[in-house]
Amino acid sequence: MSQKTWGGRFTGSTDSRVEAFTESITFDKRLFRHDIVGSQAHARMLAEVGLITADEAEKIATALDEIGQEIVDGKMEFVTSLEDIHTHIEKALIGRLGDIGRKLHTGRSRNDQVITDLKLWVRDAIDELDGLLLDLQKAFVESAEREHNVIIPGYTHLQRAQPVLAAHYFLAYVEKFQRDRERLRDCRTRVNILPLGAAALAGTSLPINRESVREKLGFDSVARNSLDVSSDRDFALEFVFCLSVIATHLSGWAEEWVIWSTTEFNFLDLPDAFCTGSSIMPHKKNPDVLELTRGKAGRVIGALQHLFVLVKGLPLAYNRDLQEDKTAIFDSMDTVGGCLAVAAPLVRQTKLRREVIAARLDAGFLDATTLMEALIARGVPMRSAHEAVGNLVRACEERKCRLRDLPNSLFEAVAPSHGATVKASLGVENAIDAFKSYGSTAPTEVAKRLDEWKQKLEL
Amino acid sequence: MSQKTWGGRFTGSTDSRVEAFTESITFDKRLFRHDIVGSQAHARMLAEVGLITADEAEKIATALDEIGQEIVDGKMEFVTSLEDIHTHIEKALIGRLGDIGRKLHTGRSRNDQVITDLKLWVRDAIDELDGLLLDLQKAFVESAEREHNVIIPGYTHLQRAQPVLAAHYFLAYVEKFQRDRERLRDCRTRVNILPLGAAALAGTSLPINRESVREKLGFDSVARNSLDVSSDRDFALEFVFCLSVIATHLSGWAEEWVIWSTTEFNFLDLPDAFCTGSSIMPHKKNPDVLELTRGKAGRVIGALQHLFVLVKGLPLAYNRDLQEDKTAIFDSMDTVGGCLAVAAPLVRQTKLRREVIAARLDAGFLDATTLMEALIARGVPMRSAHEAVGNLVRACEERKCRLRDLPNSLFEAVAPSHGATVKASLGVENAIDAFKSYGSTAPTEVAKRLDEWKQKLEL
Amino acid sequence: MSQKTWGGRFTGSTDSRVEAFTESITFDKRLFRHDIVGSQAHARMLAEVGLITADEAEKIATALDEIGQEIVDGKMEFVTSLEDIHTHIEKALIGRLGDIGRKLHTGRSRNDQVITDLKLWVRDAIDELDGLLLDLQKAFVESAEREHNVIIPGYTHLQRAQPVLAAHYFLAYVEKFQRDRERLRDCRTRVNILPLGAAALAGTSLPINRESVREKLGFDSVARNSLDVSSDRDFALEFVFCLSVIATHLSGWAEEWVIWSTTEFNFLDLPDAFCTGSSIMPHKKNPDVLELTRGKAGRVIGALQHLFVLVKGLPLAYNRDLQEDKTAIFDSMDTVGGCLAVAAPLVRQTKLRREVIAARLDAGFLDATTLMEALIARGVPMRSAHEAVGNLVRACEERKCRLRDLPNSLFEAVAPSHGATVKASLGVENAIDAFKSYGSTAPTEVAKRLDEWKQKLEL
Amino acid sequence: MSQKTWGGRFTGSTDSRVEAFTESITFDKRLFRHDIVGSQAHARMLAEVGLITADEAEKIATALDEIGQEIVDGKMEFVTSLEDIHTHIEKALIGRLGDIGRKLHTGRSRNDQVITDLKLWVRDAIDELDGLLLDLQKAFVESAEREHNVIIPGYTHLQRAQPVLAAHYFLAYVEKFQRDRERLRDCRTRVNILPLGAAALAGTSLPINRESVREKLGFDSVARNSLDVSSDRDFALEFVFCLSVIATHLSGWAEEWVIWSTTEFNFLDLPDAFCTGSSIMPHKKNPDVLELTRGKAGRVIGALQHLFVLVKGLPLAYNRDLQEDKTAIFDSMDTVGGCLAVAAPLVRQTKLRREVIAARLDAGFLDATTLMEALIARGVPMRSAHEAVGNLVRACEERKCRLRDLPNSLFEAVAPSHGATVKASLGVENAIDAFKSYGSTAPTEVAKRLDEWKQKLEL
Repeated sequence: MSQKTWGGRFTGSTDSRVEAFTESITFDKRLFRHDIVGSQAHARMLAEVGLITADEAEKIATALDEIGQEIVDGKMEFVTSLEDIHTHIEKALIGRLGDIGRKLHTGRSRNDQVITDLKLWVRDAIDELDGLLLDLQKAFVESAEREHNVIIPGYTHLQRAQPVLAAHYFLAYVEKFQRDRERLRDCRTRVNILPLGAAALAGTSLPINRESVREKLGFDSVARNSLDVSSDRDFALEFVFCLSVIATHLSGWAEEWVIWSTTEFNFLDLPDAFCTGSSIMPHKKNPDVLELTRGKAGRVIGALQHLFVLVKGLPLAYNRDLQEDKTAIFDSMDTVGGCLAVAAPLVRQTKLRREVIAARLDAGFLDATTLMEALIARGVPMRSAHEAVGNLVRACEERKCRLRDLPNSLFEAVAPSHGATVKASLGVENAIDAFKSYGSTAPTEVAKRLDEWKQKLEL
Repeated sequence: MSQKTWGGRFTGSTDSRVEAFTESITFDKRLFRHDIVGSQAHARMLAEVGLITADEAEKIATALDEIGQEIVDGKMEFVTSLEDIHTHIEKALIGRLGDIGRKLHTGRSRNDQVITDLKLWVRDAIDELDGLLLDLQKAFVESAEREHNVIIPGYTHLQRAQPVLAAHYFLAYVEKFQRDRERLRDCRTRVNILPLGAAALAGTSLPINRESVREKLGFDSVARNSLDVSSDRDFALEFVFCLSVIATHLSGWAEEWVIWSTTEFNFLDLPDAFCTGSSIMPHKKNPDVLELTRGKAGRVIGALQHLFVLVKGLPLAYNRDLQEDKTAIFDSMDTVGGCLAVAAPLVRQTKLRREVIAARLDAGFLDATTLMEALIARGVPMRSAHEAVGNLVRACEERKCRLRDLPNSLFEAVAPSHGATVKASLGVENAIDAFKSYGSTAPTEVAKRLDEWKQKLEL
Repeated sequence: MSQKTWGGRFTGSTDSRVEAFTESITFDKRLFRHDIVGSQAHARMLAEVGLITADEAEKIATALDEIGQEIVDGKMEFVTSLEDIHTHIEKALIGRLGDIGRKLHTGRSRNDQVITDLKLWVRDAIDELDGLLLDLQKAFVESAEREHNVIIPGYTHLQRAQPVLAAHYFLAYVEKFQRDRERLRDCRTRVNILPLGAAALAGTSLPINRESVREKLGFDSVARNSLDVSSDRDFALEFVFCLSVIATHLSGWAEEWVIWSTTEFNFLDLPDAFCTGSSIMPHKKNPDVLELTRGKAGRVIGALQHLFVLVKGLPLAYNRDLQEDKTAIFDSMDTVGGCLAVAAPLVRQTKLRREVIAARLDAGFLDATTLMEALIARGVPMRSAHEAVGNLVRACEERKCRLRDLPNSLFEAVAPSHGATVKASLGVENAIDAFKSYGSTAPTEVAKRLDEWKQKLEL
Repeated sequence: MSQKTWGGRFTGSTDSRVEAFTESITFDKRLFRHDIVGSQAHARMLAEVGLITADEAEKIATALDEIGQEIVDGKMEFVTSLEDIHTHIEKALIGRLGDIGRKLHTGRSRNDQVITDLKLWVRDAIDELDGLLLDLQKAFVESAEREHNVIIPGYTHLQRAQPVLAAHYFLAYVEKFQRDRERLRDCRTRVNILPLGAAALAGTSLPINRESVREKLGFDSVARNSLDVSSDRDFALEFVFCLSVIATHLSGWAEEWVIWSTTEFNFLDLPDAFCTGSSIMPHKKNPDVLELTRGKAGRVIGALQHLFVLVKGLPLAYNRDLQEDKTAIFDSMDTVGGCLAVAAPLVRQTKLRREVIAARLDAGFLDATTLMEALIARGVPMRSAHEAVGNLVRACEERKCRLRDLPNSLFEAVAPSHGATVKASLGVENAIDAFKSYGSTAPTEVAKRLDEWKQKLEL
């Protein structure tokens, strides 16, 4: 009998270069736990419907547990001639149980077996990610609380725009990671549909009970069409897409903090433990964790493109190309999981340099828009108010001064009889206090949002 | 006053090359309807909270309707010096209403205005896609019904695997497009959150009422954090991702039908109206619609990559790079919408060449797996049954015959005292009838699924 | 006779939705000049080998010139039922010349015609890009000359690393764009191989002379294998790859200058004519041209991905999918060409804020590495010197001072009897003067490189 | 002293999560040979210029050889706290030589060291690829020779188009892989420029001799600008682009042979040793090597996108993001190298099923275009001839016959007084013999090309 599970019709043996080229054991061995759990559920179902005996099912389940332990203990030898983790486990089972082991694969194919294992793995990964994202959200909420009333410059186009509360800034990221969690939750509903029982592509003539397997493995429902199952990798695309968006969120945050860590901005006090130095320049303290986080987005986005190219233009049903989905899925998960795990403590341990930030809040006309809105509130049409304040800013640039340093007469000119009042609205503290709208950086609004998040995240 | 909405603080005028480089009017003019609807809601809210009068609001609303009609009639002249559709409309409004028009932009920024317009547009696009996908599903269900009992070869690795009912095959695509609709539905919930009122990045000091605008524009809720709103393009990524998966589904189907349309397969009778010829080869009838559908996946997947590169590594909040999101969104929607619109009639008008298919069902050992399962059902361990049937297939290849042409003795050898019964299970019709499992190609199962779909899609 | 060039064997007419879906006239009309030039060369060759008369060839050439002028004058009506620019021109020719026009397509196919046109277009585009890149290089060299001796901080990890001459900085970009020009030059050699004469996929039985056409159209050689020609889009991939690298270079430069334009860095004086303002914030002056340049990299990289997905997994020879190559090529060229055209004047008109930069050169320990090298030059092993200077930097951080502010005793401790000399090497001016190595920022080295570039670029 | 090479200025130690996140030793250890060779050249140059003694240089070189052997023997323990291969080797050197070892890093930085190592590695990889591509070209040339006069159907749109010689078909791939070799050769010239000596970003004040290092390491020239060197990853992009095109060529070939291996086409006799079976379907023989080759294109194209996202928007000079380039480079090379290594023997061992192919050459009107050209040669305008033959094909379809089965009268109608002659040109053998043009499938042309390739490839 051939080592392979499928040797019967073949006359020659497989070329060893081909074995090396087609093997997946080097990367799919990490599915072993899910493969064992899936096979145990399958075996018990086979017993329920009479395809094997209850005794056989329990012998299989027990032997699989032992094989699992053997793998955990590093005692299983992995060889490329046995192709993949599924063959390794089945061979080990047959080695222990003989003909009983030869019955395990009844009514299933590697096609549906692999997708089932992979979906179980992705389901676990989603749950792990949810925990990591929650922890990162908590880190941002804690920062929001710690730095609550610190005023920082808000930027658009990386130019100083309007002042915002630090808490408002930190909560913006909590929103982004919340959407990530929601996308993953939606993805999970599509992952959690049982493929097993689709067999190769058409189902089986044996009286299997897919509903029983579904219940045992905690799937929400059973896939309805075997041809679809055999060809479907939507869940892989969607999962890696969700990871790509998380990675993109992280890359934007990392970029921002890299900039904030420069000598010129100097907004942040990054902990030494999260920085590294230079092999040649003895004075360097570099934000490597942030840079790698920014860069690793490329790896995840590249993996998504990998998957799309893979599935593009494939006819029904299973094609061997699809084996290549796993490296993309595993590497993306490892990459994003790794980034999240280090991001949370970094956020927690990084402090704002409050004095440095405060010392320069007068730069960049952060109060100009509030001034314009004060004019609007006094009846000046918006576009005219915009034009008027633009002119005041130009006057400041010529005199190299702040808006509040301009003579009262200039304010009186744009807001007759309100000049002094309007001028009194200047300054970043006044600007912050002036905000009113829902979702704005108004202190009362931000306080409400902070409370809501603390409640929602159980902090 | 400068033509621009922001000229006040500038001393020089914009370089004309810069106007050409930064303009978006050539592609964002298609947002005009959504911009007008959004501005009308905004104006009415401004009146409600007393920032303008009710009369002013109605004058604005009416003038905007007129401007919209002017655009529909092709009477608006678009110029790059006016940057974008928002400026064009506001300038036209000021041209008609003077100071009243200058009040429209009160309490909002182009940042939140653009995202609001774009979200309204994407919301409409999602609804349109849902209709197109539904129609394509119906076309596949109709084909399933029309070709219901036709047996076709099912493939894995593009090798003949097991026989399936044509209805089962067509319904596999209905499943795929159903997932697409569900993904779009989930995407819509994240699109349908009101950005307007976030203003530039921090909210506003004016007493706007975002809840009122939300209700007027049919959004489900109001975005909670202005900094997040100003920087968020998740909805664009998610929308184009959904389009990419649809395009990928279409590419697989198209590839399959390109192959099925060859002289060698000859499974399909493609309508002349959906094919084109060659400029040099007078005999050619080419499946161009299918090929273009296959190829256009590249365009959509490329657009998704475009968006990811765009947003990667951007700090908060708005950055002008984001203007480039629109071409990716529009082009992807046009591409996928175009493919779907032509796919449905093509599916409807294409017939299976039943005789050609039937004439070759004996080729490729489509009944081998059923034979193996018949052995399993008689107690042969699965792996032994697999090996035995593999050997029978090898015997057939040597004798160049079908399984059913082998001598009874060979069957008796593998299934003592059941040889004849087992052999009687051969043939694709028997194989089809033997299927049992849920989701399989068993005729009763397929009939149930077909009924369920007809009910669900209201056919 | 059908409007199409290929209608003979078809019974029905093309579905109008299909015409709209498969047409390319909306985007390939910009190939008209190259199509005409190619057809004129083809016609004259046909006359040379006797397939048409010399008189017919000249009538064709003249009529094609007239048709070209008609297109320039906007008098040709483009309709989707005529598919593409090639059909439009041939139909117009037949309309003018009747049977003579019907002879033009002798011995060629649209397959080789389209690739020939496209290669001619790409060849022109490469030459145009070379000019644009050269101009941008000149702008950087001019900046290098203008700001020659200005010392700026050099960064790694966006942290202050070592001082560099501004000229050295500007010349770094000249190097990058030089590689782009060399890559394009290499690409051009592969573009400039004549496809025409490959006909549909197998060549022709008519006695055409490809060498004659090659000479007329200025190609370097004739493609050797017709099947290869009909399926090859390598040149498109390579061209868009070259564009992607250019776009990536531009994105890095743009990012850098966006950062340098912040209130915090304030290194640059960007001209008003290259900035825009905000619709709501009257004080804003945003570096939009730089941001869009940074973002547009996404579009080009996305187009490269589009092309790869398009050609992946296509069997020989021509497949209609390939029609989609043109939008990717055209859009990438327009995007990069547009960025380059605006980058050169922006570079020329932007000045360094010398005083701002100079005022902060003491920050960030830019001279620490020179100090370490001074120790090495006096015999201290490199790793020990690195450690010693690292400790000095830590001492500075605690005392909040510069290296040169530390007491002599600390220097004496690390460089016994050389303490004072070593300390005297501190300061950015001394550090700059100390550099020696080829390719370094040493003033004499930079001056040599600047001279070399001025000579090479003929400045 | 810290384990790190840069610990002097740091107060705390690195967080262990950060060590795990930032390490590269798990993947850059495969650079060890190139790191050692580079360090030996550097050390000898340091001695030449007097920065260390000749004796020290030789001690370093010898110790590095021993360390290299230790790595080969698997005796070096790799730990993440030592970051990367460069630190591992330097630490091992210092462990053996003490202060002498501490001198090795004189006048260089990890930045230029890493790029030098990587360029040496890529240079070797290019040379290895050239050998693999050459071998694959030879395999195709051998197939061309073996199957020389076999006529096969040529396809466009996967529809039968015109007959071609098998040799012509095989040589089309030789052309494609030749372009790949030429692109790699051009890439090599840009790889082969010495970065070492650029130090961190600005060069060094020590009197190093880069020209000497260049000569020792076989680089063609020395990089001219240290800032450019420190930030440049063009060579990585270009190398992975070249790999992506190779992978794309392989994917098209694989797709074609997957289709040719179907029951329906049945053109190929794939060796059992290059196929695998099914775990459930005992009769399956699947072309897995071809499918995986097709799919692996996604991995390489994804890696290219990874790299582009990585470098997009990075300011000068080195940023830690760039560390992530190596996984993309290594994985792409392994993937393409693996595909090429298995493709060559697969091509060599696969035979055309000549009888199957020959038996169906009459299907699909492969001779229609030759017929049209015969009419053109007799003076019928091309478009009229096309129309006429199109009509004949339609007549065949109605009668379900071949062109040569139509009555003479129909030929006489389109070619008065030449009907019989023209009809005599039909049949694929006649069609093949009729071809004339350079680069066509004409037997004499193909024989010339085959001879040229045999000479060029030294076969």
